Amino acid sequence: MPLKNFLAICLFSAAGWSAAGAPLPFDVMPAPAEAAATGPRFAAGRLVITTDKSNPRLAAALDRTRQRWGARVGSDRDAPPLTLAVAVQEFSPDVPGLGEDESYTLTVAPGQATLAAATELGALHGLETLLQLLRTGAGGPTLPAVEIRDHPRFPWRGLMIDVGRHWQPLEVIERNLDAMAVVKLNVLHLHLTEDQGFRIESLTHPELQQLGSDGHYFTQADIRTLIAYAALRGIRIVPEFDIPGHATSWVVSHPELASLAGPYGIERQWGVFNPVLDPTNEATYSLLADFLGEMAALFPDQFMHIGGDENNGVQWNANPKIQAFIKESGLPGNAGLHAMFNQRVNELLASHGKRLVGWDEIFNPLLPKDCVIDSWRGTEALGLTAKAGLDGILSNGFYIDLCYPASDHYLTEPVPADSPLTAAERAHILGGEATMWSEWVSPETIDSRIWPRTAAIAERLWSPREVRDVPEMYRRLAIVSDRLTEAGSLHDRNQDVMLKHLVGENLQIPGIESLRALIALLEPVKHYQRGSEQIWCNQLVPLVALADAVRPDSTPSREFAGRVEQVLFGGAAIDGGAAAALSQQMDAWTSAAREIIDPMATVYPAVREAIPPAKALIAASAVGTQAIDSLGRRRPLTPSQLASALATLDRAGLPNGSATELPVLKPLRLLVAGAAAQSSRAASDATAWRQLVISTAYPAGLPPAP
Amino acid sequence: MPLKNFLAICLFSAAGWSAAGAPLPFDVMPAPAEAAATGPRFAAGRLVITTDKSNPRLAAALDRTRQRWGARVGSDRDAPPLTLAVAVQEFSPDVPGLGEDESYTLTVAPGQATLAAATELGALHGLETLLQLLRTGAGGPTLPAVEIRDHPRFPWRGLMIDVGRHWQPLEVIERNLDAMAVVKLNVLHLHLTEDQGFRIESLTHPELQQLGSDGHYFTQADIRTLIAYAALRGIRIVPEFDIPGHATSWVVSHPELASLAGPYGIERQWGVFNPVLDPTNEATYSLLADFLGEMAALFPDQFMHIGGDENNGVQWNANPKIQAFIKESGLPGNAGLHAMFNQRVNELLASHGKRLVGWDEIFNPLLPKDCVIDSWRGTEALGLTAKAGLDGILSNGFYIDLCYPASDHYLTEPVPADSPLTAAERAHILGGEATMWSEWVSPETIDSRIWPRTAAIAERLWSPREVRDVPEMYRRLAIVSDRLTEAGSLHDRNQDVMLKHLVGENLQIPGIESLRALIALLEPVKHYQRGSEQIWCNQLVPLVALADAVRPDSTPSREFAGRVEQVLFGGAAIDGGAAAALSQQMDAWTSAAREIIDPMATVYPAVREAIPPAKALIAASAVGTQAIDSLGRRRPLTPSQLASALATLDRAGLPNGSATELPVLKPLRLLVAGAAAQSSRAASDATAWRQLVISTAYPAGLPPAP
Repeated sequence: MPLKNFLAICLFSAAGWSAAGAPLPFDVMPAPAEAAATGPRFAAGRLVITTDKSNPRLAAALDRTRQRWGARVGSDRDAPPLTLAVAVQEFSPDVPGLGEDESYTLTVAPGQATLAAATELGALHGLETLLQLLRTGAGGPTLPAVEIRDHPRFPWRGLMIDVGRHWQPLEVIERNLDAMAVVKLNVLHLHLTEDQGFRIESLTHPELQQLGSDGHYFTQADIRTLIAYAALRGIRIVPEFDIPGHATSWVVSHPELASLAGPYGIERQWGVFNPVLDPTNEATYSLLADFLGEMAALFPDQFMHIGGDENNGVQWNANPKIQAFIKESGLPGNAGLHAMFNQRVNELLASHGKRLVGWDEIFNPLLPKDCVIDSWRGTEALGLTAKAGLDGILSNGFYIDLCYPASDHYLTEPVPADSPLTAAERAHILGGEATMWSEWVSPETIDSRIWPRTAAIAERLWSPREVRDVPEMYRRLAIVSDRLTEAGSLHDRNQDVMLKHLVGENLQIPGIESLRALIALLEPVKHYQRGSEQIWCNQLVPLVALADAVRPDSTPSREFAGRVEQVLFGGAAIDGGAAAALSQQMDAWTSAAREIIDPMATVYPAVREAIPPAKALIAASAVGTQAIDSLGRRRPLTPSQLASALATLDRAGLPNGSATELPVLKPLRLLVAGAAAQSSRAASDATAWRQLVISTAYPAGLPPAP
Repeated sequence: MPLKNFLAICLFSAAGWSAAGAPLPFDVMPAPAEAAATGPRFAAGRLVITTDKSNPRLAAALDRTRQRWGARVGSDRDAPPLTLAVAVQEFSPDVPGLGEDESYTLTVAPGQATLAAATELGALHGLETLLQLLRTGAGGPTLPAVEIRDHPRFPWRGLMIDVGRHWQPLEVIERNLDAMAVVKLNVLHLHLTEDQGFRIESLTHPELQQLGSDGHYFTQADIRTLIAYAALRGIRIVPEFDIPGHATSWVVSHPELASLAGPYGIERQWGVFNPVLDPTNEATYSLLADFLGEMAALFPDQFMHIGGDENNGVQWNANPKIQAFIKESGLPGNAGLHAMFNQRVNELLASHGKRLVGWDEIFNPLLPKDCVIDSWRGTEALGLTAKAGLDGILSNGFYIDLCYPASDHYLTEPVPADSPLTAAERAHILGGEATMWSEWVSPETIDSRIWPRTAAIAERLWSPREVRDVPEMYRRLAIVSDRLTEAGSLHDRNQDVMLKHLVGENLQIPGIESLRALIALLEPVKHYQRGSEQIWCNQLVPLVALADAVRPDSTPSREFAGRVEQVLFGGAAIDGGAAAALSQQMDAWTSAAREIIDPMATVYPAVREAIPPAKALIAASAVGTQAIDSLGRRRPLTPSQLASALATLDRAGLPNGSATELPVLKPLRLLVAGAAAQSSRAASDATAWRQLVISTAYPAGLPPAP
């Protein structure tokens, strides 16, 4: 059914689903390419699956589906069963490659569902969709009657996990593979070597992991386990060995291959470091030939990522032999040397039938056209490489380690509608990857940094470009979060574990609800700010501070911002109920913050870090309450009151050592500005009024976007 | 330091630790063999470990210790560090065997700790002890100054997991191995074949798992992974292949080996079933020779468990050929045939250097003396086999699947002080095993059925016989529960997951706290009662009902019972404060129960099962309130009021279809009896008064013990 028919059918189905009408993507994330309601929702009973043929991958997926369905629907013996007929045309290879057919069609009607797919990979996606269509709650389990025709927008939909900086053991990877499958991601990119750790077992050069990893590395048996685990879920594994820079852990055991004399130790700090392999030393290529040959045999995927980023040139500049080599070879400086190195490595990979992937820096006119650019620089850089005829994937904008809200990632567009690329050039953009760099994540916290936000990125990479309604995305993100928990993710279940790091083992203590409330309002600072705020932190310092217990993308803060929007822009006059709710909310925050400052922080040493944000919340709430009061009494804030209020909010937003921040400062800023400018509200149209509030809130102009 | 010096030192240290005085086992579970405080508690900073030599097992344990220590102590840069010097005399074999030296000594003083052990297995235990000594909470992390000399009472301290009835995948086993290490258990007994599933890959006879497992089985690679995982934690893996009975899943692919003609399908129901291998068929031994030979090579442990339990004789009796064989061979009936079969199997195992283990039923005078009896019948049966010179382990009393409280298992004594066994005979009692039979556990609930109760069993098997103070056990059980969570157990973290099965995805709903309160008060029914209450349940019905969301050993119920004790037996007169607390508690229960009956159960279909227990709670609370009122007004309940109250409690305790029960009915019964008998209180001594209350509560005599 084409999309244009959708609305008419939706109108019919709305009454049966929700008073507000059925949103186009139903509750599914990523939203399907085409979906239409065909009837009212109906009660869902147990699931009976029939299939004409099967293979281990499909059988395992059907089995997971039965388990998860059963767990959610329970043993209600009255509801009519749903028979699901699964039909697959042919089977994909045991280990999937790039560009498999992942499409499927799914129709769901009372008593009967059918799932048809070209390959079982599509069927796996259709099963996840079906599980997401199922909703439980008041009234018991129900399903919508739907017809879905779905296929991915991009063939490369990845999650990169950096196991170099903070080691992440096998079970972390496995549970994240399970979660990836829920949101139809199909590439796990493992960043295996870093300055801070060499995380893969080499049999030809065991000294690499023995000296470079503190004993924390994947054995080759582990890798085979992971590849099989991923393949069973339709996920490719692309390994990355970062060379020639980010190579400290290589030269711990091979100082002779560094570009300056050693010795070297495993790097414990965060940043960009000098050690880089020496491309003028034939022994470098000899080691790489052994190691990469071994890895080419271990990893079946056609692509191998060699990093190539952030070589700062310090060692190459400081080594006269290297500079002489550049000169003698007529290379255009360090960049030329890097290009030559990449060419040698590419020949090596090509001899094993592998295609080279690297970060932006490897791009060079000499680079063979079958290499792939992984862009941390952005859509524009990616466009250039596409124009040059190279395939590319986008990581810029999907840096989930930077703790920006899901909405930011969600609106990152690999191929904008107005892209200057031709259709052929656009086809070079294979997709993108969420990148979980691991300076600030432990096995306890990594799930909460990946999920649920990465589901929004998965939607960007799977769903049509036009699917970009942010509130609708957040509505479904809350739902898919539970599906991710079902699949094994600990992003939700580890919240109390993190809280115990702050107050000790007993959570039944006075004040705990206040601490929970503050933590729910805080977010980790963005970008790389934590490193400058908590400079004592390094690889050896446990991640159990306030900034680790808080999570990106605070939901109560977003809800507060929504209520501020309602008060300021919800209509011609102020919404008294919304204003009162804001006041009550801020009173509650103030009480909670006071209880944290005293007694909680006096009793629990690890809570001390929460004192500055608690104080900031009290000050910001006072300013917000003043604004609400001003709006209620229709007495605009005076210019000096406005200036003082904005200055208070500025101070509340300064770094406070806890590496956390209060996202409610932004809506409070608008609230204050609205209170100051309220006399102009009636006389302005909606757009002008919004503009006025924003310019009043930010007299020096808007802060730069991330 | 001998134990007799302990008390004197304790007196000195008590002031520095807690007002109530330092309990002998500190916060460690299992309690150490000998432990003495040597000074006041002190602030604990980061941990610095030194060691003279290491091997992979020790290195991994030190690494886990650093991680867990760091996570709990955090990055407080002010507290003085603790240096831990670890010294090990020699290394144990890579895969541990029975009877390794697991002893250690640990001294902890401000700034300096030393851990000495004969082998690194003892060091592993000492590290767990150190992690348990560390407490966090108000005031920050602290340690006691202590001297501990510790060693296990029994060399075989096991947990059996039945993966046959409900399949438990690799990650379930792995996280339970992590938890076992926390409480110093050293044997994982995997029950791998059952009527309901053949859970191990055979390469010689792949049809066994292909037809007998629904695809849910451990590959041989999985097993190697588990053995290595366990060995790294000092844990042996003993496999069980249950023959000749419990063998339905064997004969699905080999009907010709059953004692009656097939065909057979995988059993889906729970119970004791007829299919049994035919011991008169040489082909049976030929298959077993292939399969057990293969398993003997796969599992390095010296012991192999062959089950042997619950052959009901139906098939043997019904097969004239088998009966003729018995007669011709002069065997003493079916028991003789079973003994002959065991002898053949034992020869097979012996040829691979293995010692045979089996359940009680294999015991027979002809059984070779190096076989081992695993007793599900009890201490007395075990005494008999010990007298006969056979080694034995106790499982009876440790059946954690039956959902009895930890205290019951805790007081189960493998070798009672008054045992008639000689010292040499006692030495045949190797230890015991907690048995997690899996009729009623899924991967989501199994952790909550194993932990924390199995920690009490671990203490019984490790600590001196004299350590048996139940309230003190429960105090530490609550503490060790968090250590188990740290190690990866989901017993606590899956509570909300289970709640969502009842009310759907959104837990932020009216009434949820009432539902939580009721669930915290309920326990699953005991023994095998659930099977008769919920007869429609079988292997294919998901375990997501009310009985799955509740947990054994309800803490608020135990606390309520303690307050009832205080009111009835706390002194010569009634404790008014405790009585008022009981009244308030029951009022709160009544309100919660009403909210569950309406509206929760009307809105959430899966909550309907909670209506009968909610009604029972309301009725029982009314009776309890009447008793409190009677005590407060010093007007004894009349005989007819007493009879009516007891009848109400009887009705509240009847099976109600939800397969849950209210443990508070027992203390309420005492409360009612106390209110009826109160006139005699002043005139009776404490013992007589207690006896009077009990006999009033149970006019027909006490119910039988479990």
